[in-house]
Amino acid sequence: MKHLLGIADLSRNEIETLLATAEEMHDVQSRPIKKLPALRGRTVVNLFFEDSTRTRSSFELAAKWLSADAINVSAKGSSVSKGESMRDTLMTLDAMGVDAIVMRHAGSGSVAQAAGWVRASMINAGDGMHEHPTQALLDAHAIRRHLRSIGQSDDLAGRRVAITGDLLHSRVVRSNVLLLGKLGASVVMVAPPTLLPPGAETWGVDVTSDFDSVLPDVDVAMMLRVQRERMSGGFFPSEREYIDGYGLTARRLASMKPGACIAHPGPLNRGLEISSPAADAASSIILDQVSSGVAVRMSVLYHLLAGDAGA
Amino acid sequence: MKHLLGIADLSRNEIETLLATAEEMHDVQSRPIKKLPALRGRTVVNLFFEDSTRTRSSFELAAKWLSADAINVSAKGSSVSKGESMRDTLMTLDAMGVDAIVMRHAGSGSVAQAAGWVRASMINAGDGMHEHPTQALLDAHAIRRHLRSIGQSDDLAGRRVAITGDLLHSRVVRSNVLLLGKLGASVVMVAPPTLLPPGAETWGVDVTSDFDSVLPDVDVAMMLRVQRERMSGGFFPSEREYIDGYGLTARRLASMKPGACIAHPGPLNRGLEISSPAADAASSIILDQVSSGVAVRMSVLYHLLAGDAGA
Amino acid sequence: MKHLLGIADLSRNEIETLLATAEEMHDVQSRPIKKLPALRGRTVVNLFFEDSTRTRSSFELAAKWLSADAINVSAKGSSVSKGESMRDTLMTLDAMGVDAIVMRHAGSGSVAQAAGWVRASMINAGDGMHEHPTQALLDAHAIRRHLRSIGQSDDLAGRRVAITGDLLHSRVVRSNVLLLGKLGASVVMVAPPTLLPPGAETWGVDVTSDFDSVLPDVDVAMMLRVQRERMSGGFFPSEREYIDGYGLTARRLASMKPGACIAHPGPLNRGLEISSPAADAASSIILDQVSSGVAVRMSVLYHLLAGDAGA
Repeated sequence: MKHLLGIADLSRNEIETLLATAEEMHDVQSRPIKKLPALRGRTVVNLFFEDSTRTRSSFELAAKWLSADAINVSAKGSSVSKGESMRDTLMTLDAMGVDAIVMRHAGSGSVAQAAGWVRASMINAGDGMHEHPTQALLDAHAIRRHLRSIGQSDDLAGRRVAITGDLLHSRVVRSNVLLLGKLGASVVMVAPPTLLPPGAETWGVDVTSDFDSVLPDVDVAMMLRVQRERMSGGFFPSEREYIDGYGLTARRLASMKPGACIAHPGPLNRGLEISSPAADAASSIILDQVSSGVAVRMSVLYHLLAGDAGA
Repeated sequence: MKHLLGIADLSRNEIETLLATAEEMHDVQSRPIKKLPALRGRTVVNLFFEDSTRTRSSFELAAKWLSADAINVSAKGSSVSKGESMRDTLMTLDAMGVDAIVMRHAGSGSVAQAAGWVRASMINAGDGMHEHPTQALLDAHAIRRHLRSIGQSDDLAGRRVAITGDLLHSRVVRSNVLLLGKLGASVVMVAPPTLLPPGAETWGVDVTSDFDSVLPDVDVAMMLRVQRERMSGGFFPSEREYIDGYGLTARRLASMKPGACIAHPGPLNRGLEISSPAADAASSIILDQVSSGVAVRMSVLYHLLAGDAGA
Repeated sequence: MKHLLGIADLSRNEIETLLATAEEMHDVQSRPIKKLPALRGRTVVNLFFEDSTRTRSSFELAAKWLSADAINVSAKGSSVSKGESMRDTLMTLDAMGVDAIVMRHAGSGSVAQAAGWVRASMINAGDGMHEHPTQALLDAHAIRRHLRSIGQSDDLAGRRVAITGDLLHSRVVRSNVLLLGKLGASVVMVAPPTLLPPGAETWGVDVTSDFDSVLPDVDVAMMLRVQRERMSGGFFPSEREYIDGYGLTARRLASMKPGACIAHPGPLNRGLEISSPAADAASSIILDQVSSGVAVRMSVLYHLLAGDAGA
């Protein structure tokens, strides 16, 4: 593996390998001394054309705990704002001799495009409405840990996952549908008709606008963030109506089957797509997703960078 | 000690321990090779909801010189600006597995509140108008070094300290009054009546609006910053009148007794609360306060984090 | 050498030493494990009063690959914005105990001024319209590598370099004219009369506004960035006319002699001062300049900081 551009490119085998290494990294993470020498002398750049403290911090910690050097570059105040092309920005960082570029950009497909320009390994940290592969990997990792924690097999085959929220503007849903499919889980996408991606019925998953009809049967209720700024786009009539139809309220929480868990990639809009009783429930794996994020990113950096130097 | 929330929580013994370790750290700091292995594999997050380059840099250097990993998170461009609650921001960073969170926030009491939510050690780097404990510790550390440098005992018992300036909006004055009291010094708070905290007379210190009457007797003139943006709040009639009453002018400097020193937490408003002759006087310890800041923060990080891993 | 303030202060011998070490650093940079222990325990601050991701990242990587600690301070959100004087900002960072301050500032001469205030080594990363010494060093380093790569001697004596663009507002041209002169190259400055520095004819170089008459004879065409924001200043009538007279178009590229190379400090305005065929030509050394930048900065940091600790 040279780049991590999307779940679409990964075989089931590669996914299993990444998740297995993530388990080992998770153990390191829980030690008082969090430091592996694996990537000493390697350099990771976090190149964020869109702000995301959460994802950037997670990659930065992952790099540092593997002993890599990490530097942060944001679009604000960078040569991008002086009119430099994205290609020149990337080729400049690449020419400095860095080993991996973790990139977030509003353009769908921009990270794959970048991979054609540079010698460094490109890691997609979210490209427009396309993919966010480490999010899908960390979701699967956290779900598996949940299953083991309640004494069940952590095999996702046959599991049922509902992904609910603003699916139209989401890169997370795309990566998750692909990854859960490869691991044998079945997915149901839940959203108001205005927030479903066009052609969703061809994705090989179930699609519905009736959350209540599917929720009692799922093993995982994955709630996606509703961006309040979409409100003005007329995608749904009011916050109250959105909550009525698609919020994970206390009432809906009570309808979930025993052992089912609740996931959310954050940041949370408490009281909108998720209620506080649901976010803070014993069956919520939201904080486990956060710690899984560092473990999965350590695994990805390790597999992309540790290879050829015999580190 | 698990957290450092305020001077109010510290016993005299704990203060003496922190200051004694700071002396050792000060020695490390003056070496060409500034690096101790004590916190290798530990991670410190600087979470600043309010900007402060000075304090953030000081903590960042302290962490790095102890071989800890350090990452910076500022409210600007973070999920806070996407509507995430402060509690969720903290629990997210905590779930990543960091060991200490150095936090500055406009809310008085916010850092103590945060300590109830996380497993990490919380360090208060300034919470609203409440406390700024490392500032008070570094002030005491710098005053002691001054006393030794002029051949006197560095015991603060019986010393007299005037704290002058905008005491109403200051967290520094609160932490200093508490700490100087615990070390046996006597404090006089000096400010125009409009800039005195309500109930100041109950703090167990002297309070006056007549700077000239107290200045000749003090061992330390600690000047606090006047925020120019307060001018419009009607707290004092004009800059000139403020200087006349409360500025440490060259004339006032001359009235100080031999051996007395001048302190200021920075950044300075030269020509307002402090004149350049006073800021740059041989008896000014302002730059010693800066270097003491790194030493004291190394001591705090060491005591909070080195403990349980036998590092 | 204590500081690096400008090329003006460097002897030919010192320049040769810096460039020779840069060659060694360039080799380190191309290894899979990029890490030398030379500056372990030393601390470098990047103090940028003006934004420059490119230069800041280059210095940050240089510091980290030499095992130094590096922290970034930008004017935005710093105490500078709270009215602190530049002198107090510098003396504060210095008092923290850092070893080198890499500084960019809009004031010509500001870095030399700073060197009079601090104990740390000052490195000029661009001061107003005065100097940008590491840029000139990296340019020479990249030109030499180009000459060797085409089987020629890398001696710059007798070489001819055209520097074309907005020379009036450029610090790069000043540093390059000085450095190329010390190495025996001859320089021709090319710009519209409105963008030539006053008194340019006294700099000991050729000056012309006729790019076509000099281009076929040069060994290096160094193109400088035209800042689009200058357009409103009436410095040239229109972009089209600027390109006609001073752009390195495909037509002009074809007029260059075999073995001649193309340089540009970046960020590029493709289609304005440089066409894409020229920027991406086999004879373009633009990306080599970027990698040379890290090597040269490693060399500078090494010579300024490794000295007295026997590291």
